[in-house]
Amino acid sequence: MQKAGILGGGQLGRMLLQAAANYSVETFLMENDPGCPAAHLCHHFTKGDIKNHDDVYRFGKNVDLLTIEIENVNVEALERLEKEGVKVFPRPSVLRIIRDKILQKQYYQQHQIPTASFVITQNKEELGQRTDFLPAVHKLGTGGYDGRGVQILQTKEDIIKGFDQPAVLEKLIPIRKEIAQMVAINEKNESTLYPPVEMIFDPVLNLLDYQICPAELNTPVLYKVEAIALAVAKNFNSPGLYAIEMFVDKENNVLVNETAPRVHNSGHHTIEAHYCSQFDMMWRILLNYPLGNTQPVLPSAMINLIGSNNFRGNPVYDGLDEALKMDNAFVHIYDKKETKPGRKMGHVTIMSKDKQDLLHKANIIKHNVKVRS
Amino acid sequence: MQKAGILGGGQLGRMLLQAAANYSVETFLMENDPGCPAAHLCHHFTKGDIKNHDDVYRFGKNVDLLTIEIENVNVEALERLEKEGVKVFPRPSVLRIIRDKILQKQYYQQHQIPTASFVITQNKEELGQRTDFLPAVHKLGTGGYDGRGVQILQTKEDIIKGFDQPAVLEKLIPIRKEIAQMVAINEKNESTLYPPVEMIFDPVLNLLDYQICPAELNTPVLYKVEAIALAVAKNFNSPGLYAIEMFVDKENNVLVNETAPRVHNSGHHTIEAHYCSQFDMMWRILLNYPLGNTQPVLPSAMINLIGSNNFRGNPVYDGLDEALKMDNAFVHIYDKKETKPGRKMGHVTIMSKDKQDLLHKANIIKHNVKVRS
Repeated sequence: MQKAGILGGGQLGRMLLQAAANYSVETFLMENDPGCPAAHLCHHFTKGDIKNHDDVYRFGKNVDLLTIEIENVNVEALERLEKEGVKVFPRPSVLRIIRDKILQKQYYQQHQIPTASFVITQNKEELGQRTDFLPAVHKLGTGGYDGRGVQILQTKEDIIKGFDQPAVLEKLIPIRKEIAQMVAINEKNESTLYPPVEMIFDPVLNLLDYQICPAELNTPVLYKVEAIALAVAKNFNSPGLYAIEMFVDKENNVLVNETAPRVHNSGHHTIEAHYCSQFDMMWRILLNYPLGNTQPVLPSAMINLIGSNNFRGNPVYDGLDEALKMDNAFVHIYDKKETKPGRKMGHVTIMSKDKQDLLHKANIIKHNVKVRS
Repeated sequence: MQKAGILGGGQLGRMLLQAAANYSVETFLMENDPGCPAAHLCHHFTKGDIKNHDDVYRFGKNVDLLTIEIENVNVEALERLEKEGVKVFPRPSVLRIIRDKILQKQYYQQHQIPTASFVITQNKEELGQRTDFLPAVHKLGTGGYDGRGVQILQTKEDIIKGFDQPAVLEKLIPIRKEIAQMVAINEKNESTLYPPVEMIFDPVLNLLDYQICPAELNTPVLYKVEAIALAVAKNFNSPGLYAIEMFVDKENNVLVNETAPRVHNSGHHTIEAHYCSQFDMMWRILLNYPLGNTQPVLPSAMINLIGSNNFRGNPVYDGLDEALKMDNAFVHIYDKKETKPGRKMGHVTIMSKDKQDLLHKANIIKHNVKVRS
């Protein structure tokens, strides 16, 4: 039986471990918090810091293959482990590029992958000299995470909000749609694509309301999306699962925003709504089995369950009955010990062959299922 | 968060725990073997004997709700726990009937549920007086398990093989088809039925080759099957999931063979091939959520992976690639430490909208995927 290690124990680790139990694999998990969502679903839990070289190296020496559920891990330890014969997917070379937004943008540029035009600024002084580039997004090279490390700079007066460290200054795109495309690549360099998903935003609050799959795109745009996503994934020269976030602008140009080289929030609907889920797919890649079928069972919407404002503490989930009484609604609660405003606490997937019915039900779920304390 | 206990840690417990991680529930498992298939997937593992009163009682006092993955548990402890306010599904009163084949037959009789005609024999002497009833099946009242405790008595000369303890002597049925029907019942006494499955036997070796879903039945027979299964389940007066095994005889009579009041081998295909799996359904029942959708995504076949003859020891799985390279084939390995001839080591589900294609693929899987040591 192969020994497989996962770095990180959040909801992605949890769902990876649910899927792992379909196969003959001994699972190891490292995470600092023994009460994390994934901790109880592995064979062997190790308390440790996934950003610490020695912790990651020691953990990795004990397994045959290693993967991540978050990019923010010690890449140097992974490189050493890879040299010493541990199978690490995605390869550490991918993480080295992804974790630095400057290197990531240069990767797109180097491989002729369309992305918003950008300049690199080393500090605030350099940023001050590029007001010609505004309106723009300023993204910290390293150390940013989950919204932190990103600033929108509309005018000269906003420059003060920019970063005084190496960062990417990227032209603001007139966005028509935000989409995400998942690509799976195995050890034989075979690949398969899930249908792209579309992010639906609340027009008033500008919050992600839910995502729908498949995205509504005309055929030429869909072809561009698929070709670009495949180019992003293939040029990394590493087996793995890639979630490529893209913008479609007002002129139907497709521009890559960023890439996650792992199972991803934008693939949660695949658990029920596609024949092979992203989590099953990741195990097929890790264990060197044939890739699975990415086709949808039915069109779907996925609604993240986010910790409500003004609540912090032991989570309570309201309205789950409202969701579960609908045909083909599926709830996933991540079992986090504490809810906080904006924290991802779970998700609901709803499937329907009719798009109006799907959106109607997604809205019912959005307005009825709430996480408070 | 509710605390849920499961008695038994085999493959059914394993798949129940995979599904549990979709909900906010703290899981407890009791089983004698800490290396059992389900042990590593719960929050809290207790080593204990599920047939021992004190072990079961102590385990049950610590949880809010309790279920089983095998009938062979201490019913007296469950009755005491139920009296003391623990939710036990299925109710212990159901297990009391099911665990004794004499009481189970009398239950069918009492509720006018068609079943093969039978007499009860207390010992071999009584059996010897009922040669008029042959050919028949002799079934031990209690203590039989998985094939043991059942004898086919064709002629007077076979009487010697019968049991000298309380047993059921049941007329041999001229079987046209063997089918199984799952029924789910929740606390509101709402119910829903999965489509029945059909067991396909190897005509030469008389071994279960695979099962297909839905069973091929003409409409009047299907209606009988559903009505009979519903009567079996509803008269137990207990929420739960019921797998009712039935025979269709040469004259299209439908006769109940036996009932399992739990998730069951005949429902494994529901994981991928139905919108709501039997394991998800069981959690909906236990946690008092609305029942799920039992409709098939696609027709399916399920092939048990059985330990090959002449092999005993650390299992090796051959031919998984052959299965997994087919669209919509899904493997479930139970992670048992030892393979033995005839032991259930895993299963494969294959889905296809075309029946010939489905049977063709089921046969490829049957002949390529093997468990040896």
